[in-house]
This record gives sequence, C-alpha cells and structure tokens, in this order.
Amino acid sequence: MRQVFQGLGASRGSALGRARVRLPHALEVAEEHVGADEVEGELARLHGAIDQVRTGMHALRERLHGALAHEVGEFLDLHTLLLDDPELLQGLDALIRTGRYTADYALRLQRDRIVSVFEAMDDDYFRTRVDDIDQVIGRIHAALHRHVTDMAGVAGEILITDNVAPAELAQLQAQGVVAIVTAGGSTLSHSAILARSLHLPLVVGATQALQKANDGDALIVDGGSGLVVLEPGPDDLREHRTRERSYIRERKELHRLRREPTRTRDGHDIQLQANAESREDVAEAHALGATGIGLYRTEFLFLQRHELPDEEEQFRAYRDVVLGMSGRPVTIRTLDLGADKADRTGLALRDEPNPALGLRGVRLSMARTGLLDTQLRAALRASGYGPLRILVPMVTSREEIAAVRTRIKLLGRELRTQGYEIADYVPLGAMIEVPAAALALPGYIGKVDFLSIGTNDLVQYLLAADRNNEALVDLYTPLHPAVIRLLRDVIRLAHARGKSVAVCGEMAGDPAFTPLLLALGLTEFSLHPGTLLEVRRRIRECDLAGLKARAPSLMRARDRADIEAWLST
Amino acid sequence: MRQVFQGLGASRGSALGRARVRLPHALEVAEEHVGADEVEGELARLHGAIDQVRTGMHALRERLHGALAHEVGEFLDLHTLLLDDPELLQGLDALIRTGRYTADYALRLQRDRIVSVFEAMDDDYFRTRVDDIDQVIGRIHAALHRHVTDMAGVAGEILITDNVAPAELAQLQAQGVVAIVTAGGSTLSHSAILARSLHLPLVVGATQALQKANDGDALIVDGGSGLVVLEPGPDDLREHRTRERSYIRERKELHRLRREPTRTRDGHDIQLQANAESREDVAEAHALGATGIGLYRTEFLFLQRHELPDEEEQFRAYRDVVLGMSGRPVTIRTLDLGADKADRTGLALRDEPNPALGLRGVRLSMARTGLLDTQLRAALRASGYGPLRILVPMVTSREEIAAVRTRIKLLGRELRTQGYEIADYVPLGAMIEVPAAALALPGYIGKVDFLSIGTNDLVQYLLAADRNNEALVDLYTPLHPAVIRLLRDVIRLAHARGKSVAVCGEMAGDPAFTPLLLALGLTEFSLHPGTLLEVRRRIRECDLAGLKARAPSLMRARDRADIEAWLST
Repeated sequence: MRQVFQGLGASRGSALGRARVRLPHALEVAEEHVGADEVEGELARLHGAIDQVRTGMHALRERLHGALAHEVGEFLDLHTLLLDDPELLQGLDALIRTGRYTADYALRLQRDRIVSVFEAMDDDYFRTRVDDIDQVIGRIHAALHRHVTDMAGVAGEILITDNVAPAELAQLQAQGVVAIVTAGGSTLSHSAILARSLHLPLVVGATQALQKANDGDALIVDGGSGLVVLEPGPDDLREHRTRERSYIRERKELHRLRREPTRTRDGHDIQLQANAESREDVAEAHALGATGIGLYRTEFLFLQRHELPDEEEQFRAYRDVVLGMSGRPVTIRTLDLGADKADRTGLALRDEPNPALGLRGVRLSMARTGLLDTQLRAALRASGYGPLRILVPMVTSREEIAAVRTRIKLLGRELRTQGYEIADYVPLGAMIEVPAAALALPGYIGKVDFLSIGTNDLVQYLLAADRNNEALVDLYTPLHPAVIRLLRDVIRLAHARGKSVAVCGEMAGDPAFTPLLLALGLTEFSLHPGTLLEVRRRIRECDLAGLKARAPSLMRARDRADIEAWLST
Repeated sequence: MRQVFQGLGASRGSALGRARVRLPHALEVAEEHVGADEVEGELARLHGAIDQVRTGMHALRERLHGALAHEVGEFLDLHTLLLDDPELLQGLDALIRTGRYTADYALRLQRDRIVSVFEAMDDDYFRTRVDDIDQVIGRIHAALHRHVTDMAGVAGEILITDNVAPAELAQLQAQGVVAIVTAGGSTLSHSAILARSLHLPLVVGATQALQKANDGDALIVDGGSGLVVLEPGPDDLREHRTRERSYIRERKELHRLRREPTRTRDGHDIQLQANAESREDVAEAHALGATGIGLYRTEFLFLQRHELPDEEEQFRAYRDVVLGMSGRPVTIRTLDLGADKADRTGLALRDEPNPALGLRGVRLSMARTGLLDTQLRAALRASGYGPLRILVPMVTSREEIAAVRTRIKLLGRELRTQGYEIADYVPLGAMIEVPAAALALPGYIGKVDFLSIGTNDLVQYLLAADRNNEALVDLYTPLHPAVIRLLRDVIRLAHARGKSVAVCGEMAGDPAFTPLLLALGLTEFSLHPGTLLEVRRRIRECDLAGLKARAPSLMRARDRADIEAWLST
C-alpha cells in the first residue's frame, strides 16, 4: 500500500530503490542445505560475492579523496584484512563442503563462531572487532543477494536506519546504497555535510519511515524536499523522473559557473581556493577557476608505503602542483599525521590512547629528526617554480611557529648556498585547529603571514567530541556559539592585522554554511574542487551587506537552535 | 668518585639511595643455570618476587586517591591481569624446571617469547601491549633484586631517566623508588605537579647526572635545591640528615596551620574546599578546616563492580558525606566516566578510538536511561540532611544544563510527593572543562548557580594534548596564554554575575600556581586535603593587591616562557 512520509531533505537528489531496514546485528538466516552436486556451485557463489566485495572496497579506496579518505580509509584497510583472513575463508569452505550448508548459512555459522571466540576474550579491543566482523560478513551477505537482485533488474538499495555515522557513508554508497533515510539526525550534522559532498541523497528526521518500511519494499526518496514514498504508484514514478531530470539540469547549469567570478550579489569578490592532494584535484581546481591551492595535503606521499619519501620525490610532487596552477599561489601543508595512521606509514608511530590528542601534525614533524627539514627543503626548492606558501598543521603555541620560521630561514640560506633558485620570501602560515592556538593568536599573529582555519578539528577539540564517534552525532556541530565566536575573533584579528585568513574545513565546502561564514567576515574559502561551483553559486546569491547587518544577532546566539534559526531566515 | 650535579628542584624532599638508570627496554641478563637441587629454591625466589609485586600493586591501588586513581588505575589493573596470566607463570616454571635457568634468565626468555609472538601479530594493539609486558617483567625482575638489596640493608632506588610520565610516578614510588632525577622536564610539568602531591622528591633538568651515573651508584638527591650528589661523602650524608630533619620540621609547622584562617597577607579571605571521594578524604577535609566539599567524585561507587549502584546505595553514600561535613556545603558531582573506564564498570561501554573526546560525563549520564535520574534522586534525598549542591561534568552546551535543571525540578516534585524531606532549592553547577562551555558561558551563565573549573581536562582539550601521553610532556601545561586568558574570562564573568566559581584541577592543589590563580581573581580553590595546608601556607604568604597589580603583565604573556618569568618574580 502506498504511503508518504515527510522528513527533512538533507542532501539533494531523487532515488528509486528497495528498502534495506538496518536492525542491530541483523544476520538472521535459517539453516538450509544444498545437494552434494550443488556444493561447488555454492562455493563459487560465495567466492564470487567475496571477490565482488573486495573489488568494491578497492574501487572505493581509489575514489576517496581528501578528508573522506582519512576518515574512511582505516575502516576499509581493516575490513580488507579481515576479508582476506585465511581462517575465515577456509572455515566457510569447510562448512559448505562438509556440512552442505548454503553460503548464507555458512556465513552465519562462521560469524557466530568467530564472534563467540572474540566475545569470550572479555577484552574491549576484541569486542569492538566484533562490529567489524559483522560489517564484513554483512557485506558478503549483501553481495550474495545483490547478485540475485541484479539479475532481477532491481535498482539499488535505500538504507532506512536510526542514524548514520559519517565514516560509513562512502562505504554504503560503494555497496550500492543509492539513498539514505534516517529517523534521527539533522540537516547540518557532519553526516549530512558528507552526504552532500558525496551527492548521496539523504532524508533525516523520518521517524515514521523507519517504523513502517520493511526490507525489500519499493521506495522513492527525494533528498531535496524530504519526501519518502513507500510502494510508489505510476504518478510517483513520473515525478521521480521529472525530479531526476531537474537535478541533472541543475548540475549542468552549475557547470556554466566555472568561468564566472565569485562575487556576491552586492559586488564583493570572494576568493575560492581549492583543497587538493592529487594531480586530478589540481587540474580540476585550475579548470574551475580556483584562485589558488589553499591546502595541499602532503599525507598521501607518506601513506601506504614503508619508506619515507625523500627530498627529491617531495620536491617533484610540490613543483608539479606549482606548475599545475600556472602562477596562482599554492599552499603546501606540512605532514598532518598522527598515531591513528600508525599502521599505514613507515613512521613507526606508537599507538596512543587518544590519537586525536597525541603526537601529530607539526608535533610529530618536529619530534622526528629530518622529517620537517626534508619537507621544508623540498617545498622551498619548489618555490623557485611559482608562488608557494607553507602551512603548518596542529600549531599549539607561538614557540612552534617561531621554530619552523627559524628552520625555513636556515634551510633557505643553505639551499641558496647550494645553488638552488628559491623564492626571496616564502610566506608561512598556521592552521588554526587547536583551540589554544586560536585563543593565544594575539601573542603570535605577528609571526605568521597567513592563517587557515581547520574547522573539522577545531570543532572536535572545542566541543571535546570526536567527529567520528557515532554516539556523538548530535553533539558534534560547528553550530555552537563557541565555534561561531572563535571564528569571528580569528577572522577579525587577522583582517585587523592585514593577514590573509581562510576556512578550509568541510564547513567551507558546504553551501548551507556559506551565508554564516560570509556574515562572520570571511573572504577566503578553501574547499574540495567537487563542491566549488555550488559554493560559488551560493555566494552569488548572497547579499553581503545584508548578511553583515545580521551578524550581531548571530553573535547573540546562545545555543544551536538560535544559530539554526538564524541560518533559516 | 664524588660528583655534584645541579638540576632544578621540582618536588621537595631529600633522599638517599642507589641509582637506577633507566635504559629503553633494558633487560639484559646473561644465561645462567642452577643445579638440580637449587630448582625449588629458584622457583620459590621467583614466586616470592611475583607475590611481592602483586602485593605492592594491590597496596598502591588502595592508596590511590582522586585524579591519581583515575590516571594510574587502568595501568595497574592491566598489569595485575598480566601478572596473573597462567601462560606467563607456567612458562616461567617450566623454564626453571626443565632448563634449570635462573629466575632472571627465565624471565628474560619468557619475555622474549611472548614479545616475539605479539610483535609477529603486526597489530598496533599488541605492539603497545609489549610495553606493558616489559613493565610487568621489569617489575618482577626488580623485585628479585630488591630482595637481594633489602638483605644487604641498602636504601631505596633513585630513578635517573630522560623523562618520567605522570601515570608512572605512583607506580615507581610503590616499587620503592624514593626519588627521581630527570634530564628533561620542567618544574611546572604535569609530572612535577603529581610528584609534589605524592611527596616524591624530583629533580629535573639534570642532564649530566644521566650521563655520569651508573646502576647501583650511591646517590643523594635534594628535590628542594635541585642538588644531586653521586657517591656522597660523610659531609653530604650529614647535610642530607639535616635537610631530612628540616623537611620533617617543615611538615610539622605546616600542621599547625590546620586551625588558621586562609587569609592573604593583606587580609583577604580565600575559600579552600576539598576534593574527596572517600570517607577518609571527608574526615581529613573537615579536620583541616576545608570550607566544604567542592568536588565529591561519585565514580568510586561505579568502578570495580558489575552491577550499577541503586538509588538507596547512592543516597546513603551522599548523605554520609553531608553528615560528615556537619553543615558545610557538599558538592556532589554526577558520574564522570567514559570509555577509558569501560572494563571497570557494569555500564557496558563501547570502546572508542578517542575516549577523551567520547561519550563521557553528562553525555553518558543522559544517554543511559535511568543513570542520571537515579543519581539525581539520591543526591536530592541527601539534600534533606544538610547543604548540598549538584555539579555536572563535561558540560558542552546550554542545552545540557537546561535538561539537567528540568530533571532536578521534576524529580524534586516527585520526591516531595513521595514524602521525602528535601532542600527547598538545590544549587546546580557546571564543570568548565570543555573549551566550548567556557567560551559560550555568557549564553547560559544565568542557568547555573555556580561553576567549577576542571583545569586538567580544560588544558588537555584547549591544547589538544592528552596529559598522559609521554610524547607530549613538554607540550601539556596550564602555563599557556590561552589557558590563562580563559581562566581570567570565566572567573571575571562569574563574579560579575554573582556566581561562585572554583578551580578544582591539580593546579588548585599546587602552591606553585597559587599566586597565578590569585592574580586571576580566584577566591575559591578545591583541592585534595593532602595539599590543603601547603596551599593555605602559600596563600598566607601572598599579597593579593600586589598580585592583582601584576595581573595585566600576566595577561600580556605571549608564551610559556613569559608566564614562567611572571611566576618567578
């Protein structure tokens, strides 16, 4: 029976698919057997599904960029390891061969076996791993069934769940989920921001949909209006097609903006720089008219390998970015890694109980002999090929910036003596992401040439809320008066002292926050090229004078509700 | 040959002992065998040492209080588990029986075996565990030797090392370490603060001592003057005895202050409240003239047990504190736990990648049905027996305080209907430890009756530096301009709005910081009774008007060096 539910549209796009209602630890499969002659077929079916999952995860790994790669990468790596675990695979084969179970039931038995061993260990580490095992098994199980549904020609799945964690969005999309409907959540949550950057339709606050939908129900979801239609009729299908066409038209129109200026309705120019970490990002940034690279992530040079990149390799990478931007400034950020990436680098990092509060960013670069100097030398050498700036992550105090400044001076002198052509002056900037660095800025702003506000981490530390912690999805938000006030103070102080300041967190790349950032006085955004045009469009719709006139009422906000009300008027 | 080194005195007290120079992963033991008839003796020696370690750890566990218990507790629990591991113990016995190795060499072999298995696992979790295994093995090894030195009548050990982590201080003391000398470190580090609260002599910045001393060298250390004497002569011994006597006299004189008022030299009264979690703390607080309990930690009711304490049990505990303080106000802090204590409660907490930024404090209390209400009902019922206030930890936003306030009102009405005699009004306070709560205070200060600043966590979040992370001992410090400014702002705003505000972190209990806190306008300190008299003495030496006149120069500090310079003049 057709039913319509109204939620809140959180990420635009119209999707048609079958409902997958997510229940906790759901893998209820009845015991079923196959005939002796079917064993080999069942094994092939199982391994086909496993290969499909492996390929899917590999493809997802390749597609990930920027902040997403960092957030989702670890999960993927761990899951790939679990997927290749010989004990898991041999156990499954043995169950099918000797017990003549279906692949589905073998999966369930094997899952229960592993889990019971882990749970008996009475150790939290292993108990968390149970969730990972469930996810991997669940993925194989889904692949076994996708096979069936693919043959039946049915569209992708629409996940209906209570809440969705930021880190799982990209995985779900790769698994074939074409839209998500949640009972809880908010249109301005970190998950909603990521869904928009993935162009994955999302409807939040649709409590009824979760209660009424069953696995396999046909469903239409519109992430623009927040409409969810269960068992849609011919009219619904027609409307879905119309919406699909209009979303496609919208994206085409957006594309026309690539040669337009980033100017508010009342004529103020805003700078859109790009966050980049690959050749493709740089090319796209250039093509879309980014005014420069505001944040070049150097981590990819260090990840997924055992030896550290030497000066020559780093130099070539940075030089290519500089050349790729043909005269527009490029900001090289020094290594921003910590113990949460310990297993993916040749840095031999010690595991830490709270890696987000650990030896990371410039702390790590300075603690490891040669790490900072090699990177600075490579960047300085690249400065001979075009305008280049150096940006330091995780700055906590004046002392750190002073120390990096001294190294740059010494290394610059050394390089000139060695005959390298380098820029006369290479601007040095600090990431503002540690709250203390923002609050103590008056004491060291004279020591930096520019600032870049990393809102993702800044919010995390200010609110003492890990942004990837599912239990805190409602708490982690940039819409806290403390965040707004600190952003205003940093932007204001920087401008008063004639320093360039950009915001480079996810906030900058999401049109939902554009008016707020403009009201706070921001004139430079640094964002992934994938969202550059949407933000440009939003800026072109904004009246800067009007927004600034409304800034005082924003500064009076006492809580999230006040800020959301400000945004919605 | 007698040598004298000058370091910086970081924790007062004079100690005489033998040097233990700490080398990384030091367990170099040569292969030695025992005769067939000595096997049983060697086994007895080994098990004697193990029992000694177990007893020591148990005794330490009992002695720990307050913040120390939280910081050191987990390590101890884990190490106790490792110590009782049957594989470790049986392996050792087998080595001695069949290989006829000495207990020392068996320890080394067994250590290498376990470690090689763990290291082969290529998993960070297990690699960290290697350090724990090393510590436990090292402890047994030390006990084997202490046995020998004890018989020789030699005094305790003096650890000479590069740096010492806050979390290991209490353990070292329990192992018989009577003083510590470090090459690095600072007199105002978290380790120095803890050493002072443990009355464990500490000298920092004694680089030469580390280079020159060898294991077993006789040593005299004065944590007051920073003097380290290697192979002391008769004069040194005399001076050591004189100093010892003077430190004892000092403590006696201190004791006379227990009935004296806490008043600055220029006649301003300061309130010293106590942090408490046990009956003994409350009795001591009362005896020393604490003006109330500023922070009653309720965690101990929840730790080391499987079921949650019910309302009745909590009520009795809180009522006893109220009665114990005979009319002076008692501040009950609601549960302040997170996933880092997951294995020690019946709360079934999920493991988190960054527990310090996770579901903890009031977030957890509100997320778990019944947890907050049970605690509030118990506290409200206790309010019928004397003045009681309720303090909420980890507050991040206005919404949380408003929610707790609503619960208190509803539960109060309910309790009155049920016939309980409760106070007409129970003041509600917020811990200021999440930076956002400090920055957004203007928006919700009208909703709270009082504030308590938890500097330990506040500093950790502001600086994004885990205070137990050894790699960050130089970074974690309350002496950051951001900390000073935020403290000043919170104290100033609270006083302007007529709200009581205390500092309850380690900072409040350390006389080194007393002048700084007074200069910032603080009039209420909440500290462990063990350091109350020292802080009282320091306050009585201070001239408040003079300190306040110097406050503007403190506010101009740009870095740690500026603040240290301010403190030292």
